[in-house]
Amino acid sequence: MPQTPYEQLEIRFRRIGLLGDAEAVLHWDWAAVMPPAGAQARSAQLAELKAVGHGLLTAPEVGDLIAAAEAEDGLDDWRQANLRHMRRLWTKATVIPEDLVVAFSQACSECETTWREARPSGDFAAVKPSLQTVLDLTIEAGQAKAQALGLDLYDALLDDYEPGGRSADIDRLFEPLVAFLPSLLAEAEEAQAARPDPTLPDGPFAIDKQKALGEKLMKIAGFQFDNGRLDTSLHPFCGGTPDDVRITTRYDEEDFTSSLMGVLHETGHALYEQGLPAKWRNQPVGGSIGMSMHESQSLLMEMQVCRSRPFIEFVAPLMRDAFGGKGPAWEPDNLYRLYTQVERDFIRVEADEVTYPAHVILRYRLEKALLDGDMDLSELPGAWNDGMQELLGITPPSDREGCLQDLHWYDGAWGYFPTYTMGAMTAAQLFAAACASDPAIEAGIAGGDFTPLLTWLGTHVHGKGSLQTTANVISDATGRALDPGVFEQHLRERYTS
Amino acid sequence: MPQTPYEQLEIRFRRIGLLGDAEAVLHWDWAAVMPPAGAQARSAQLAELKAVGHGLLTAPEVGDLIAAAEAEDGLDDWRQANLRHMRRLWTKATVIPEDLVVAFSQACSECETTWREARPSGDFAAVKPSLQTVLDLTIEAGQAKAQALGLDLYDALLDDYEPGGRSADIDRLFEPLVAFLPSLLAEAEEAQAARPDPTLPDGPFAIDKQKALGEKLMKIAGFQFDNGRLDTSLHPFCGGTPDDVRITTRYDEEDFTSSLMGVLHETGHALYEQGLPAKWRNQPVGGSIGMSMHESQSLLMEMQVCRSRPFIEFVAPLMRDAFGGKGPAWEPDNLYRLYTQVERDFIRVEADEVTYPAHVILRYRLEKALLDGDMDLSELPGAWNDGMQELLGITPPSDREGCLQDLHWYDGAWGYFPTYTMGAMTAAQLFAAACASDPAIEAGIAGGDFTPLLTWLGTHVHGKGSLQTTANVISDATGRALDPGVFEQHLRERYTS
Repeated sequence: MPQTPYEQLEIRFRRIGLLGDAEAVLHWDWAAVMPPAGAQARSAQLAELKAVGHGLLTAPEVGDLIAAAEAEDGLDDWRQANLRHMRRLWTKATVIPEDLVVAFSQACSECETTWREARPSGDFAAVKPSLQTVLDLTIEAGQAKAQALGLDLYDALLDDYEPGGRSADIDRLFEPLVAFLPSLLAEAEEAQAARPDPTLPDGPFAIDKQKALGEKLMKIAGFQFDNGRLDTSLHPFCGGTPDDVRITTRYDEEDFTSSLMGVLHETGHALYEQGLPAKWRNQPVGGSIGMSMHESQSLLMEMQVCRSRPFIEFVAPLMRDAFGGKGPAWEPDNLYRLYTQVERDFIRVEADEVTYPAHVILRYRLEKALLDGDMDLSELPGAWNDGMQELLGITPPSDREGCLQDLHWYDGAWGYFPTYTMGAMTAAQLFAAACASDPAIEAGIAGGDFTPLLTWLGTHVHGKGSLQTTANVISDATGRALDPGVFEQHLRERYTS
Repeated sequence: MPQTPYEQLEIRFRRIGLLGDAEAVLHWDWAAVMPPAGAQARSAQLAELKAVGHGLLTAPEVGDLIAAAEAEDGLDDWRQANLRHMRRLWTKATVIPEDLVVAFSQACSECETTWREARPSGDFAAVKPSLQTVLDLTIEAGQAKAQALGLDLYDALLDDYEPGGRSADIDRLFEPLVAFLPSLLAEAEEAQAARPDPTLPDGPFAIDKQKALGEKLMKIAGFQFDNGRLDTSLHPFCGGTPDDVRITTRYDEEDFTSSLMGVLHETGHALYEQGLPAKWRNQPVGGSIGMSMHESQSLLMEMQVCRSRPFIEFVAPLMRDAFGGKGPAWEPDNLYRLYTQVERDFIRVEADEVTYPAHVILRYRLEKALLDGDMDLSELPGAWNDGMQELLGITPPSDREGCLQDLHWYDGAWGYFPTYTMGAMTAAQLFAAACASDPAIEAGIAGGDFTPLLTWLGTHVHGKGSLQTTANVISDATGRALDPGVFEQHLRERYTS
């Protein structure tokens, strides 16, 4: 039977998806197990896979096939959504000239290398020329995408991470945060000062015991070990493929608490991947919907569930037994205070959930100003420090703890940062809706049974793949659009009462 | 500057090579770390990579490019050899119709599955229909290759594993073995009977200690851990890529000796890969030359070097220290007897180096008869048992220990078996030549310094890639063609004196 244009596209995108899966496994291998001198060959393998996938996506016949498929009758919702994703991916891949793709990739590699050298000494001037090149090429590529998609420059860049995301919506969501966070933070600090300081349990904590406890909690959370692994890498991440999810962590023998929470964070990402619709595997509609929804799943697991009082009550004896701990440091009350400490600090990746949005808002403001030409790169360090002072009342001692701390911009990831905080808000709203819809969810978490929660997430988020937009998933699941008020309420309840 | 046809081919074959490297890493991952339910997705990824590589190799323009490159002047020896390999690979890839490739691949998958079910109960009849299909398709594809290459059917199949290999040469090499092995085996058994039986050191042997000792000996042998790893898998192998060689073993807590020797065997393979010419990475001429030379490198390391008396003298104290061993079982004399035991047995993969050739000769005779139509598959079990009786004087109790024991034929690998014994002969001849050319080699092995050996192998084998034929490498390195007499002398010295 001859294939329809849509069917031909499914075959082609399956191939692109499989090559992407191969890339994902090779990336995991690089981070988790590859010997050091394998890097150059691995880079070449990954570049080749990317080039082949790009070639399949941008082949001359693809545009015609998409147009022909769009004219087909009788495609169901999933296929229509799949086709929309195909058009979006194809448009973005074809609109940027090949030489710009190459120049951008080279500029990012070079800038990342320079950044790695410049960061330890806080030498922003050393990396500024490379960063300027990355920024210029980001703007050039972004404008091409913006024109093709009928979007503003920032929204065209944001779309790579958050399909359908708009900076107007972000502004609307971030404004209330800017308004309520400073006073909320002050109240949280005041409440915290009135309680005893938490105590870190005494180590050392053997790595194999930490790993065993991590795997135990992953199982409780619903992670399928037949379809995934836990390993070690310098920078924890969730990688691999939906059928074979690879999460990583790093261990500190003096402190098991942050690694363990990191494992649970990555488990939230992993459960999303493992719950994606198998029927649509390797099709665009079968993948996760965007970065804010992905981050919402990790933050729902980490912040909403695993740092909650009921879960800490449940897990405290497991921790104590895992390490043979004794004394008051192992009491749930102490561990809860430990896991909900608030502190104004310079480093985003170490920030708690009350101060985290300030880090994101600062970066969002600055990247918009840089992209729109309202600010020159030479002004970045000063503007960063001014922003930190305004938002958190602290000033970094050097650019190392300031505008040099994150790889994102130096590696060409502009328009990414806001998804972290959108994810935090989404997590709060989804979790509130889940708990309201099924009392078994909170009871389950308190008793170490995450099945009710996972069932709800499977129905309302994971199993939908990219069938709907992020906004529609949120409103279908929670009955309303994303509302910073739910996030505010969560923070107030946990930190100021 | 416009590219010459030859330069265009190098670019294309580099891409094919990089995709093959990606495949190799994904295969390692499957065997060593992949969670069980990842298999289906992984199969699809590998099939896709293979299809893309096949497409690059068989694209319409490639034949013209090869013809044009062959008309170019001024290509040096490496480039000319590279081009010859390109033509050979292209011819074999293009001569088999796409539907036959697919049918063969499916037949092999199905037959392998059936074989896995049939083997435990020794039920040859259950797998015979699937095996007939594999055999028929092997012949069909082999005849197409034979015609295109101007070879006999068997040689066309052999060429996939042993480029340039000819069954006439194998016959010439195997005839002397058939003549001298029975009496040599009898003499070895007699000599063995006159010595005390060896004792296996008492376990258990913790896996982490076994691994640490294996890695220590790998380092001594010259394995570069910056470019490779040792891991665990059910079936030990050497995989990965030349810049990132992944070898595996499996551990038995009651007996460290066979796993350790397995590690050294795979290390021999690995040193070949790590020593391939970096300048020709991902080009056909930069790869290993064929299966017999590859096996010669593992057998040189295992049989010639690591089971030798001087090395056992060196390694015995390391073994004792690694496990805190005490008593006579740890004496070099006992360990040497343990590592050079001879026994007539049914299973090839457990055979010692005296009886191993009989296993190979049996399979070589049978696969030739089946391919040439001189024997029907229904006669295979009986012919197998008759052959075992003739060559080793034993008869398998069932087909499980007979014609069902090896995966090769059931997975479509016909023409592979002789390379094992050609490798054993090559190993003996290369090692004899190496020792004769540099006295530091044997002294180094006795003292735990493999540098002189590795230097010699680098010059005469590893660093040559596929510049020359296997036959030329042997004659250049040893001063004569492959000669079974050298192998015989090695066996006589070790086993009958």
